[in-house]
Amino acid sequence: MNPVVTLDDLQVRSLGASTLDSPLALYVDGRETNEYYVGETDRILYDDTLELIAARGVPMEQLPTFEAGGPRRKIFFEPATTRVGVVTCGGLCPGLNDVIRAIVLELHTHYGVRDVIGFQHGYAGIVESNGHDVVTLTPEYVSRINERGGTILGSSRGAQDPGLVVDRLVELGVDILMVIGGDGSMRGAHNIGAEIERRGLTIGIVGVPKTIDNDIPHIGQSFGFSTAFAKAAESIKAARVEVEAAVGGVAIVKVMGRHAGFIACYAALANHDADFVLIPEVRFSLDGDNGLLSLLGQRVQERGSAVIVLAEGAGQDLIPASDRTDASGNAVLGDIAGFLRDQITKDFANRGQALTMRYFNPGYAIRSVPADASDSVYCARLAQTAVHAAMAGRTDMVVGRRRHRFVNVPIPFVTAGSHSVSPDGDLWLSVLESTAQPFSMA
Amino acid sequence: MNPVVTLDDLQVRSLGASTLDSPLALYVDGRETNEYYVGETDRILYDDTLELIAARGVPMEQLPTFEAGGPRRKIFFEPATTRVGVVTCGGLCPGLNDVIRAIVLELHTHYGVRDVIGFQHGYAGIVESNGHDVVTLTPEYVSRINERGGTILGSSRGAQDPGLVVDRLVELGVDILMVIGGDGSMRGAHNIGAEIERRGLTIGIVGVPKTIDNDIPHIGQSFGFSTAFAKAAESIKAARVEVEAAVGGVAIVKVMGRHAGFIACYAALANHDADFVLIPEVRFSLDGDNGLLSLLGQRVQERGSAVIVLAEGAGQDLIPASDRTDASGNAVLGDIAGFLRDQITKDFANRGQALTMRYFNPGYAIRSVPADASDSVYCARLAQTAVHAAMAGRTDMVVGRRRHRFVNVPIPFVTAGSHSVSPDGDLWLSVLESTAQPFSMA
Amino acid sequence: MNPVVTLDDLQVRSLGASTLDSPLALYVDGRETNEYYVGETDRILYDDTLELIAARGVPMEQLPTFEAGGPRRKIFFEPATTRVGVVTCGGLCPGLNDVIRAIVLELHTHYGVRDVIGFQHGYAGIVESNGHDVVTLTPEYVSRINERGGTILGSSRGAQDPGLVVDRLVELGVDILMVIGGDGSMRGAHNIGAEIERRGLTIGIVGVPKTIDNDIPHIGQSFGFSTAFAKAAESIKAARVEVEAAVGGVAIVKVMGRHAGFIACYAALANHDADFVLIPEVRFSLDGDNGLLSLLGQRVQERGSAVIVLAEGAGQDLIPASDRTDASGNAVLGDIAGFLRDQITKDFANRGQALTMRYFNPGYAIRSVPADASDSVYCARLAQTAVHAAMAGRTDMVVGRRRHRFVNVPIPFVTAGSHSVSPDGDLWLSVLESTAQPFSMA
Amino acid sequence: MNPVVTLDDLQVRSLGASTLDSPLALYVDGRETNEYYVGETDRILYDDTLELIAARGVPMEQLPTFEAGGPRRKIFFEPATTRVGVVTCGGLCPGLNDVIRAIVLELHTHYGVRDVIGFQHGYAGIVESNGHDVVTLTPEYVSRINERGGTILGSSRGAQDPGLVVDRLVELGVDILMVIGGDGSMRGAHNIGAEIERRGLTIGIVGVPKTIDNDIPHIGQSFGFSTAFAKAAESIKAARVEVEAAVGGVAIVKVMGRHAGFIACYAALANHDADFVLIPEVRFSLDGDNGLLSLLGQRVQERGSAVIVLAEGAGQDLIPASDRTDASGNAVLGDIAGFLRDQITKDFANRGQALTMRYFNPGYAIRSVPADASDSVYCARLAQTAVHAAMAGRTDMVVGRRRHRFVNVPIPFVTAGSHSVSPDGDLWLSVLESTAQPFSMA
Repeated sequence: MNPVVTLDDLQVRSLGASTLDSPLALYVDGRETNEYYVGETDRILYDDTLELIAARGVPMEQLPTFEAGGPRRKIFFEPATTRVGVVTCGGLCPGLNDVIRAIVLELHTHYGVRDVIGFQHGYAGIVESNGHDVVTLTPEYVSRINERGGTILGSSRGAQDPGLVVDRLVELGVDILMVIGGDGSMRGAHNIGAEIERRGLTIGIVGVPKTIDNDIPHIGQSFGFSTAFAKAAESIKAARVEVEAAVGGVAIVKVMGRHAGFIACYAALANHDADFVLIPEVRFSLDGDNGLLSLLGQRVQERGSAVIVLAEGAGQDLIPASDRTDASGNAVLGDIAGFLRDQITKDFANRGQALTMRYFNPGYAIRSVPADASDSVYCARLAQTAVHAAMAGRTDMVVGRRRHRFVNVPIPFVTAGSHSVSPDGDLWLSVLESTAQPFSMA
Repeated sequence: MNPVVTLDDLQVRSLGASTLDSPLALYVDGRETNEYYVGETDRILYDDTLELIAARGVPMEQLPTFEAGGPRRKIFFEPATTRVGVVTCGGLCPGLNDVIRAIVLELHTHYGVRDVIGFQHGYAGIVESNGHDVVTLTPEYVSRINERGGTILGSSRGAQDPGLVVDRLVELGVDILMVIGGDGSMRGAHNIGAEIERRGLTIGIVGVPKTIDNDIPHIGQSFGFSTAFAKAAESIKAARVEVEAAVGGVAIVKVMGRHAGFIACYAALANHDADFVLIPEVRFSLDGDNGLLSLLGQRVQERGSAVIVLAEGAGQDLIPASDRTDASGNAVLGDIAGFLRDQITKDFANRGQALTMRYFNPGYAIRSVPADASDSVYCARLAQTAVHAAMAGRTDMVVGRRRHRFVNVPIPFVTAGSHSVSPDGDLWLSVLESTAQPFSMA
Repeated sequence: MNPVVTLDDLQVRSLGASTLDSPLALYVDGRETNEYYVGETDRILYDDTLELIAARGVPMEQLPTFEAGGPRRKIFFEPATTRVGVVTCGGLCPGLNDVIRAIVLELHTHYGVRDVIGFQHGYAGIVESNGHDVVTLTPEYVSRINERGGTILGSSRGAQDPGLVVDRLVELGVDILMVIGGDGSMRGAHNIGAEIERRGLTIGIVGVPKTIDNDIPHIGQSFGFSTAFAKAAESIKAARVEVEAAVGGVAIVKVMGRHAGFIACYAALANHDADFVLIPEVRFSLDGDNGLLSLLGQRVQERGSAVIVLAEGAGQDLIPASDRTDASGNAVLGDIAGFLRDQITKDFANRGQALTMRYFNPGYAIRSVPADASDSVYCARLAQTAVHAAMAGRTDMVVGRRRHRFVNVPIPFVTAGSHSVSPDGDLWLSVLESTAQPFSMA
Repeated sequence: MNPVVTLDDLQVRSLGASTLDSPLALYVDGRETNEYYVGETDRILYDDTLELIAARGVPMEQLPTFEAGGPRRKIFFEPATTRVGVVTCGGLCPGLNDVIRAIVLELHTHYGVRDVIGFQHGYAGIVESNGHDVVTLTPEYVSRINERGGTILGSSRGAQDPGLVVDRLVELGVDILMVIGGDGSMRGAHNIGAEIERRGLTIGIVGVPKTIDNDIPHIGQSFGFSTAFAKAAESIKAARVEVEAAVGGVAIVKVMGRHAGFIACYAALANHDADFVLIPEVRFSLDGDNGLLSLLGQRVQERGSAVIVLAEGAGQDLIPASDRTDASGNAVLGDIAGFLRDQITKDFANRGQALTMRYFNPGYAIRSVPADASDSVYCARLAQTAVHAAMAGRTDMVVGRRRHRFVNVPIPFVTAGSHSVSPDGDLWLSVLESTAQPFSMA
């Protein structure tokens, strides 16, 4: 599943040597605080099992490792003269405002950076011709934004010409661009970084990866995911209530998950109220003794009702492919929920089995809520890590948490593939154990 | 708006003279508790303003009044030998389990009625040929059911032959049938009551009216309504978050309300996040300077985004009528939400105005949640009132709360019309004040 | 229970004749909207039962009635030149920010009043020598404040010299003072109104009564109460969880309620999780067969555990009176919770009965949360009613909702007494039915 | 910080050779599912950084590792004849019922174990003389228990004689005892395991470690912790609302944390609403320029108010030590909250600075709520892991999640020390960054 990883791939790029004393040092009045600073030898192992590292067949010191995130004793940018820009791109996700807020507070309180601006509506808001104003981000302005979902900066999908973006950054005197966005946005950030490098500028680009589908590879759970699946779980609970009250009740709860069924899996596990979980990673068939229709009919007969949790990207092989794409260039998915509703309705009718069909599509309700407490903490700490990296001159990188350690990772490393539910892994096994659906419905 | 009301219409029917001492009396060990008992002269005024009662032109003692709900010193049924049946009918509504629970607890704890059974899946569950088992309802069985949405008894739509229903009640020895259901279910209850009367039986029928649309006439807010509009308000808030993040964001939030826009109005008032509220009671046009499309375009230009709260029954005159009906005999409504989405999309495209359209349909999520604290209290007290009435031999009636007093009301009185938002009343005025939409969009 | 009420007592005072056209009229472009306006003959009956009005022995037209709240066709103040001040006084209560917000929005959107200021920290903030700045309240400033508990204006307890208050109002050119506060604050408002009258000024004083204890007489449930008892109910639920897990678990949940046990009653009814509800209105004894200690011991033996919901003002006759008062002049209550804990602990020890005692004091957590959806709607509509009254020149009055109709009421009428739980009424009966505690524990 | 760890210490004990085919295998109808099974060579590295493993100076294959948790191809117990007992011990924690439920469902659905019993009120409930009945745990019985806080089995503190415990297990024919409890309970489990071994019996003991303080060493965040700090964060938010409304508002929010300040740190980070976080791991002084009192005075002057989040075990060096212990043998902590309130009150009075002091003690409210969605998933997966280990014959062990991998760990390894907030680590740094309190207040 993982690409071949080498030490070189994990080396984060720097704008130059960090030679300035970090203002954090001034703060600690004489106390020996070496420990707070991340040293160059503090590197986090990529592997976590003996089997994996043994299989590498390299000496210990050549094992692949991530750069530890955190504050460094020496920084690259002079806080008093540094201007930082923040932009949010792509679909909404719980925690965006928490990240924005923590970036501003961290820059302001701990580095003394007073000049932070926000671009509105994604990359489009950076390019001047689109006419969006720039927002001044002060501690007062951001102090309560975390209590609200969405992003105060607005968002949009789609790439912009890196040349135009860099033109504007230069024009505005932006030293650091903090990008909060998904897969495509990070590829965009990398292209902007390449343009900056080509021009020989010292503008840093640091990303905080966002994906409600939790499909970023290598660097741990994505922010907002805990909140998202908790909301999805509420819909599953509502669906269970509905079908139990009905005669022959069957509910389909469609949740996000284009290529990765994490929301479906976690939401189903959160209350054990699902009978079937269908995800993009695991094929299923409708017909045959082991097909969904037959199993569903049995389940309704035995239990009186059934709830199907359906990731939007599941079962795409069962329906005609769409040839449309959205503004981000993602293929528009086929309507698997509608297809299943029709098939189930026909199948129950054929058997003369009573059916009350209910359809739940929590959709936007999942992504537009404020972050829960866990995600708030996580967002704050990711943002702090991103600020530390940016002030130390790191660029073309994102922050993440690799098995509880915050790490700095080159952008290309996380955009090379995507994370998904392993059909052979313990998460999917837990789902199967919880739903009692068969290991194979193919 | 109100039908002509006479004192006779408000007289609740009794199965016979109440001659047994209420066991509540035994409980109070000697204390003078006259006050707890409802007396025959305690009648609640139908009117609330001087203008209205003056307009009646009758002597004070002929003013229309409701019978006060509550415990009576003398009861009709002997608790030790009374069997009570409970049934829930129609669509789900928050608080159903609270009502079931409080009926059982009140019968058991205060009247000493030990024999309570539940019919499953509505009236269909009473008629023997449908094969649904009867459930024994004990205090233990119902002790936590209020923590869950829906109804533990299940529900179904549609009437059953009153003769078959009465046959089964007789067969099972049911003395009192408690019906929790909507408009149609109460008409069904009245028909069952008529059949009972025709046969000269002494089986009581007492209803607790249920409607998530809050459209029962004369007898106050319906249970579950507070919970329902609070959930709907969450969707409006999510919609606001979505549209504010988007470029040219417009959201339609479709909520329940076939003929009455109460959920739309209250949910919109709950957070002032709506720009337009469209309800069945107030016509609106799409075109013209004062039409929705033009006003919407302006609002998006001024505010950057707009949220439309749409009751499902609004604007039905704008689209072709459907000729289908559901199992309860209600006409299937036309898809006004889909129609508006199309019209708005076209209109913005014609003007070249940027548009990001979002559609929210909280639907079942609204009706399947547990009751909030206010509704829980209300459900408990309605159920207690219903039990008091039933034990005193009242029949063919429902309970309600007329301006904070619990009342007993004949079924025909509440099924004769329906309650809706008055376009000239203070609720709709509050909505207009909150949204700043014009008084007339016709 | 109700004082003798005469028509005169219910007459609201006006600053003078209303001669200006309401700008609301301009808004409705030609439509006949008479209905929206409140007319002088629209008066709400004080009484609600036939018995009560018959007992008055007066002709119908002399029955006591309230003035209907709502917009009037003619107003007193010229919106373009009117300055309105807002102040919040006394303890926190859910919904304060909703009221502030709706006052500002209503003034701004519908009357075109652009000049609204907020005084900080109660009456103290009006008196210049206390040095608090005045806040400019714009629609933007208040747009999201309802999402947060407390009051953005701050609060304080205690009266100020009416002369100094009026001096400052005159100095600042305030035409209308909107006071959101409790019993004592309304007496303060009345005194300020008297000083204004004495000086022959035309400054209006309109109040929105606030009390988390729900003890305002005559004019319906107080705002924030629904939210408050819902929070209190959460603590009762937590208490039940705790005591059920323990051996001999007994919990005391202390809730607000100095003289009125409404929070205790409603919170207990909200989840049926209480075994005993103790309120100031109903005396109880500790000892004897019918005393709390004996009954508690039995309950724990039978059920395994017990939860006592205790209003802070209950049982004050059992403990020595305190001679301290708080800044508002209220007597500091004796520590009944501590006393009960000690007595129960001793009593169980004497009997050798196992006891695990848990104490819950939700206190501030109840009053500092944002308003729930029902309270938000109610706050918005109360505030709109208050603005309508103030713009029409009404003064020395508060708004309320008498059995679902919004009314204007002279301040002295609501500060003359206080509302409490009737030991003979249906609310307390419902509580007794729910807890199964005896009618008398004296 | 960590004790010296060797491979041997991490070796989990087995009751004997696992020779039976796992019924999971039958379930997968022919599919090659090797991947689901945990193999003997799948071991999780103890260390996570290159520095740490390099410092060990041992060959790779001798690096310390944990046994991977999960299902094994061969199991020890014959499901059809296996009886499993479940017991919950110590204080409440969110998720206890989730763990009980998932143990029962996993045993029943996947292993076909039909005979599961629950002991009531902790170890005391196992010892016959205490007279507690045993509960039969079926899938139906546990199906909704996760919706309620606490533990349906009840709990108690304190150890029991291992001999008596084993006597009862033998008498009842219990093959596996699942213990959900804290530090002391796990030591108790180890002693029971030792007694079983001494008698040569094959009874397995598998633990799911519980601690609301999140202070279990080595094996990751404890279940319920996410829920707990989210509830604590609500109190901090309420405190902020209170102090902002008051003049000179200062709140102390006391949260759990005897030796470890995790709840205080995470709750403070969750909303950035704290000004000072005081934890047991970091000493602070009251007096001096850098002492709490002086800094607090300044903060209130600058910001108008301040919120102190106080772990119950913080600052114990400032107050006299208590010599009392609770039933679990833990020293009763001194009342640091009361002490601070007094000191702050005196100090503000001395300076003539206005002060409104508020005290919040969410206490039991934190621990008695149901688990949130994240914790529910985590509880379910921990329980599944525990069942797999138990059925495979593992004993004297607990389950945990070491950096996202579920692991089996010998009990002595986790009871040897405790986990706490490192004053030099990145969590505490994040707290300091968030509160802007100085690095040193000593």
